[in-house]
Amino acid sequence: MSSRHIQYAADVESLPTTAWVVLGLLSFGRELSGYDLRKWAEASVRFFYGSPAMSQIYRELRRLEAQGYAVSRPAPPEEPRRKRLYRITPAGLDALAGWLREAPVEAPVLKHGVALRVWLGHLSDPATLRRTVLEHREFAQRMLDEVSAARAVAEHDPTWAYPAMIERWGERYWAAERDAADALLADLATLNQQPPATSPVP
Amino acid sequence: MSSRHIQYAADVESLPTTAWVVLGLLSFGRELSGYDLRKWAEASVRFFYGSPAMSQIYRELRRLEAQGYAVSRPAPPEEPRRKRLYRITPAGLDALAGWLREAPVEAPVLKHGVALRVWLGHLSDPATLRRTVLEHREFAQRMLDEVSAARAVAEHDPTWAYPAMIERWGERYWAAERDAADALLADLATLNQQPPATSPVP
Repeated sequence: MSSRHIQYAADVESLPTTAWVVLGLLSFGRELSGYDLRKWAEASVRFFYGSPAMSQIYRELRRLEAQGYAVSRPAPPEEPRRKRLYRITPAGLDALAGWLREAPVEAPVLKHGVALRVWLGHLSDPATLRRTVLEHREFAQRMLDEVSAARAVAEHDPTWAYPAMIERWGERYWAAERDAADALLADLATLNQQPPATSPVP
Repeated sequence: MSSRHIQYAADVESLPTTAWVVLGLLSFGRELSGYDLRKWAEASVRFFYGSPAMSQIYRELRRLEAQGYAVSRPAPPEEPRRKRLYRITPAGLDALAGWLREAPVEAPVLKHGVALRVWLGHLSDPATLRRTVLEHREFAQRMLDEVSAARAVAEHDPTWAYPAMIERWGERYWAAERDAADALLADLATLNQQPPATSPVP
């Protein structure tokens, strides 16, 4: 194993996934501020990995710069919201490619609070459950609309062929999530219409 | 607001969701060991919330017992794997119902490492991407098979009407996840068949 491979292996262990997400946003080639990175994360990463908080983005930028994976310069004075501009370095591109090649792909993490609440439906009431699932249905529809809009933008630029592909995937994901909420609402209605199991047969 | 409400509000802030998951597993009425709880979590909670580690389950059991929400007794000597048996108390049922009624329902947390890797496809190679998505497709199919088996068991017992409903939801979720992986494989194949954008027109 070359010393370069050893370096990658150490990074894979030492950097959190959020650092790779931030470096990934920079890998599309633009010079971005923390504020820009947050905006881009909201328009892309949010649909499949959640969106890192502003404070997390700044923490990772400091770490990436210390590591030599990003460099920054003060923003020109006419752009007051963009205090510093960051870009990826060749070493950063190399490290990110190494992470993609060598880090084990973890199984998706799913923590579905709505499903958890219906699973405990025996301690809740039908109206609350219905409202919870209905609100989730609306959330899924909103995510679908927003990822569709992001996909339409990404499709205009060949640099974003893979993001556009994942946004199509995200459209399927959030449409399925909405449809599964509809099916769950139908199942809830059926369960609540059933006569009690102990009702006397005439 | 009654003092009972104030108590719930304090719990909602102080107990992590994993504590409510463990209490939720006990709320179906069985007396269970830590080992049993882990087994039940693997057969139900895993499909929509991940499965807490053994160490987490024991930590939450100690906390729930200290809180008066669960009580335990030593397991009979003929059951050496079940060192202590836990059951929920009326106060525990009350607290769990209070949490369901009052805690805000958080949006689902999704961290999809496979989508993240395809999103960064410009730094990867087609064969690696294809293999990553294919492995995920197999994982989704396995989850679908396992949640279907769990649903078939849950449907035999009316106590588990809501878990059975969420397992049907889980079947839809994991079938959609598998189908979205298939569609992504097709999109990847199309992108890689395209001639380079700069190819000369004859």
